[in-house]
Amino acid sequence: MSITTTEKKTFVNTLKSNSYGKSMVRLTKVDRHCTPPRWKEITVATELRGEFETCYLDGDNSKIVATDSIKNTVYVMASKHGVDSLEEFALIIAKHYLDDYAHVAEVEVNISEDAWAQIEVDGDLHPTAFVKSREDIRNTKVSMNRKETRIESGIDNLAVAKITDSEFSGFIRDSYTTLKDSSDRIFGTKINAHWTYNTQSTDFNNAYETARKTMLKVFAHHHSLSAQQTLFAMGEAVIETLKDVEEISLTLPNIHRIPFDMKPFGQENRNEIFVTTSEPYGVIKGQVSRKK
Amino acid sequence: MSITTTEKKTFVNTLKSNSYGKSMVRLTKVDRHCTPPRWKEITVATELRGEFETCYLDGDNSKIVATDSIKNTVYVMASKHGVDSLEEFALIIAKHYLDDYAHVAEVEVNISEDAWAQIEVDGDLHPTAFVKSREDIRNTKVSMNRKETRIESGIDNLAVAKITDSEFSGFIRDSYTTLKDSSDRIFGTKINAHWTYNTQSTDFNNAYETARKTMLKVFAHHHSLSAQQTLFAMGEAVIETLKDVEEISLTLPNIHRIPFDMKPFGQENRNEIFVTTSEPYGVIKGQVSRKK
Amino acid sequence: MSITTTEKKTFVNTLKSNSYGKSMVRLTKVDRHCTPPRWKEITVATELRGEFETCYLDGDNSKIVATDSIKNTVYVMASKHGVDSLEEFALIIAKHYLDDYAHVAEVEVNISEDAWAQIEVDGDLHPTAFVKSREDIRNTKVSMNRKETRIESGIDNLAVAKITDSEFSGFIRDSYTTLKDSSDRIFGTKINAHWTYNTQSTDFNNAYETARKTMLKVFAHHHSLSAQQTLFAMGEAVIETLKDVEEISLTLPNIHRIPFDMKPFGQENRNEIFVTTSEPYGVIKGQVSRKK
Amino acid sequence: MSITTTEKKTFVNTLKSNSYGKSMVRLTKVDRHCTPPRWKEITVATELRGEFETCYLDGDNSKIVATDSIKNTVYVMASKHGVDSLEEFALIIAKHYLDDYAHVAEVEVNISEDAWAQIEVDGDLHPTAFVKSREDIRNTKVSMNRKETRIESGIDNLAVAKITDSEFSGFIRDSYTTLKDSSDRIFGTKINAHWTYNTQSTDFNNAYETARKTMLKVFAHHHSLSAQQTLFAMGEAVIETLKDVEEISLTLPNIHRIPFDMKPFGQENRNEIFVTTSEPYGVIKGQVSRKK
Repeated sequence: MSITTTEKKTFVNTLKSNSYGKSMVRLTKVDRHCTPPRWKEITVATELRGEFETCYLDGDNSKIVATDSIKNTVYVMASKHGVDSLEEFALIIAKHYLDDYAHVAEVEVNISEDAWAQIEVDGDLHPTAFVKSREDIRNTKVSMNRKETRIESGIDNLAVAKITDSEFSGFIRDSYTTLKDSSDRIFGTKINAHWTYNTQSTDFNNAYETARKTMLKVFAHHHSLSAQQTLFAMGEAVIETLKDVEEISLTLPNIHRIPFDMKPFGQENRNEIFVTTSEPYGVIKGQVSRKK
Repeated sequence: MSITTTEKKTFVNTLKSNSYGKSMVRLTKVDRHCTPPRWKEITVATELRGEFETCYLDGDNSKIVATDSIKNTVYVMASKHGVDSLEEFALIIAKHYLDDYAHVAEVEVNISEDAWAQIEVDGDLHPTAFVKSREDIRNTKVSMNRKETRIESGIDNLAVAKITDSEFSGFIRDSYTTLKDSSDRIFGTKINAHWTYNTQSTDFNNAYETARKTMLKVFAHHHSLSAQQTLFAMGEAVIETLKDVEEISLTLPNIHRIPFDMKPFGQENRNEIFVTTSEPYGVIKGQVSRKK
Repeated sequence: MSITTTEKKTFVNTLKSNSYGKSMVRLTKVDRHCTPPRWKEITVATELRGEFETCYLDGDNSKIVATDSIKNTVYVMASKHGVDSLEEFALIIAKHYLDDYAHVAEVEVNISEDAWAQIEVDGDLHPTAFVKSREDIRNTKVSMNRKETRIESGIDNLAVAKITDSEFSGFIRDSYTTLKDSSDRIFGTKINAHWTYNTQSTDFNNAYETARKTMLKVFAHHHSLSAQQTLFAMGEAVIETLKDVEEISLTLPNIHRIPFDMKPFGQENRNEIFVTTSEPYGVIKGQVSRKK
Repeated sequence: MSITTTEKKTFVNTLKSNSYGKSMVRLTKVDRHCTPPRWKEITVATELRGEFETCYLDGDNSKIVATDSIKNTVYVMASKHGVDSLEEFALIIAKHYLDDYAHVAEVEVNISEDAWAQIEVDGDLHPTAFVKSREDIRNTKVSMNRKETRIESGIDNLAVAKITDSEFSGFIRDSYTTLKDSSDRIFGTKINAHWTYNTQSTDFNNAYETARKTMLKVFAHHHSLSAQQTLFAMGEAVIETLKDVEEISLTLPNIHRIPFDMKPFGQENRNEIFVTTSEPYGVIKGQVSRKK
């Protein structure tokens, strides 16, 4: 230890806030003793807030739970308690730190889960072989302190598109506007939705599947006058369908499919040939709350 | 045009080979007039070989089809001919250049396709709304010159895992070996398989789905003594099932799930808690050919 | 427009918040008429908050600036005003919407910039040819409403490592701890730092380079007892060096290099052979504020 | 071991080729005992070809070097021999397998290296602190069997752009052409170049830096009538400059910057405002050989 660091005890400025933890802790959990066996792959990030100032200011680590131990805790807790749902597992991890360490004030646990399904062979589900079944990702964020617990769960990257029942017209025309009105455009997006629960004990797995189905149904059925309108309709439907959901935030990137101009080639584009784009994209956000 | 470039006509070295083209041409093709309507998203790369030396040596572009025109050609061909299968569409594009330009000697067309499905609403498929349904990617590479045409089609990134019926033992033990024999390990991989057809006219869409199903079935059923053995079994099964397939190449990354050591924590890991890894990974390759 | 949507005017729930805009608007700006000419590549995201409820609730787009127009605005503003610094350009864009539209309440503009430099040829800088010169990314976020303007600028992904003067010991040892104390470990991270300015007119380009140099200097010189301690030292140094900076937030992933166990191979690892990892990683965060 | 697999000894089809190995083995190598100390981060992939058929056909692993041992070998070899250059290290690894195992017929070793430099502090280079200094990646592929050894080294992802001295005109105009001639376009690309050596003992590190500088110099100076012409000029210059290089293959994606149409906004675009694109992109390939 060099002299310079230990001597430096007075600071000109202030440590306003701080936190630390371990990210990208990846766990494969097999349950061999249920029927059929289960296969789960999750990724866990744990973040602690508390009385860690002396570590930042003086390099005194005596109150630091090593991030390596935070990693170990994930595997040990999975072994002890299983991983029934992301939400329950996150609650277990968060509670552990508040129970064991008085100087930890708040814990945030983020977990995401890849979707796997049993492989279908000749119409039957094989009990011990699995295939990655969706590109969209389920996740949860549990924030817990000694006063309150917040569970925000969601889905990311659920790519959808509809080829009819989507318009966009009547928007502001100013000197920066070149877009024309459209009464029949492609509407393609990736649904990112995160909702808070008003309870800590519900069937989180079932709620997730219900929310996913509900949003897909509304997206399919809604006659969209704007991405914004469809967003609200999806949010409202989730709240109506799931009584345990208090609030839902949606972010819908508008992933444009641009009609390819066929005129130079002497053909007509009957709204069937599009340039698929990845950038730039629109971003539509909205938060829908249960009416009190 | 500066003097230096036009004067330079003698070269010390040789242009041994050359090619050029356009990559990442992304197309959304909607077929509104069939029942149900169809939605396809593909990405096309076209590469030309031929008499282009004067462009490389002298900057003479008179024999160059601009890559911008190559891009346009994709959209125009999709409009004229539709996109029934990747393979048929690639053949149309390749043939176009050989038909129109005597100085084009060879064309390679690579196409990949994202998997989309109609959204299921209350048990029914919605006709005009779609959801990205798989993470794995279908693709084809058509290489055509005036003597022969080669169609190599395949699948990439089909993630699978099995929790039983996988062993690995009896391998070489030398001074670099620390791995122990395993009679029951997780076998997780991403299937990447590419096969050649011995015909230019078959039901390519059906062949693709059959190959995918066949590989999943073998992966699920096979009692694996090594990833290599499972690879061969999968390749053989595809050739046996599809008479139009001549040869298949498989690449299986061995994506390791490493048992988490529970001993320091006073618990036993009953082969249920694993560290999921992304690197390093094993790579197993093999090519299976139809016996003449 | 279908009847169902226009009739639906009563909603059970509440639109609590909303915003929308355009992301990933990518601009290359060349200044040919200065010496030497300049080359800039930036990516812009603009987000608007305001009275857009009727769009979400009723599909009434009459108050919506189309995201396509938001994209156009970036290019037009770059042409009119140039892009001297990310911060000034973001201020121009944000102000535009508040000036032109009374119903827009708040604008957030995020801009990032790739680092390019003139190509060095035989010791001289070539005036019109450029090379991507850094992997780290400069960025800014300007948030403006009619009461206040906040400028938060920063750097992301500045990868650094030091091979001495880094310790980590004396941390909590509990039943989840297996990590040993280290008096000489590799410290590798990617600096992500974002600071707020207490002014809207300073030499932002110079401030950025000074902040980057200052953090690199502290990282190199600091005798680190923990990543946390080095984080605070870096933050304090930036505030001390730049009087226009009010507050700085740092996020340091601890990208572990794990000593490879040479014992099974009859060799000694003299702290020179490491497994480079990408996951899991520690995350250390802290916010340093100027003392009032 | 189940009966089905061990019984299956006759196969309908043929294992035409096979190989296996370990990829993404990441190594940080510190040399503390030279002045200044050195820091290297490389990623190694090793692939073996040989008599492995019984593994594929029968699950007999007795000739298999486990990929886990292949991973260990990288770290042990780095400890024994150091990593002076990618090429020398790859040669050591490849030779090891041919020396130790008669049934291994061929080894391919791919290594890539991230570019790190000492941190500059107040004009001096700090001896023990490093910063990632380039986005482009150095790499090598060594292929060795008992008859011959091939060393192909290169650079990937070296992003460059020039704002003058680039034309493209006189290309074929057919019914798919909409692109206009340009006498002054942006030329932006990412240089990917791979060259073979005609020797196994040269100063590979110096050769690499010379090749990189030479390509940057030609790119900057060349008056380009097409990307193809510049590609050839770059390849020729490398061969002329480096007598140990026999052949060089270049792949230049043409990363388009498209002039933004200012007319709708009543302004003129004086070739200064461009839409930066990532897709689609042109791909220009060429191989230049030393004249015999």
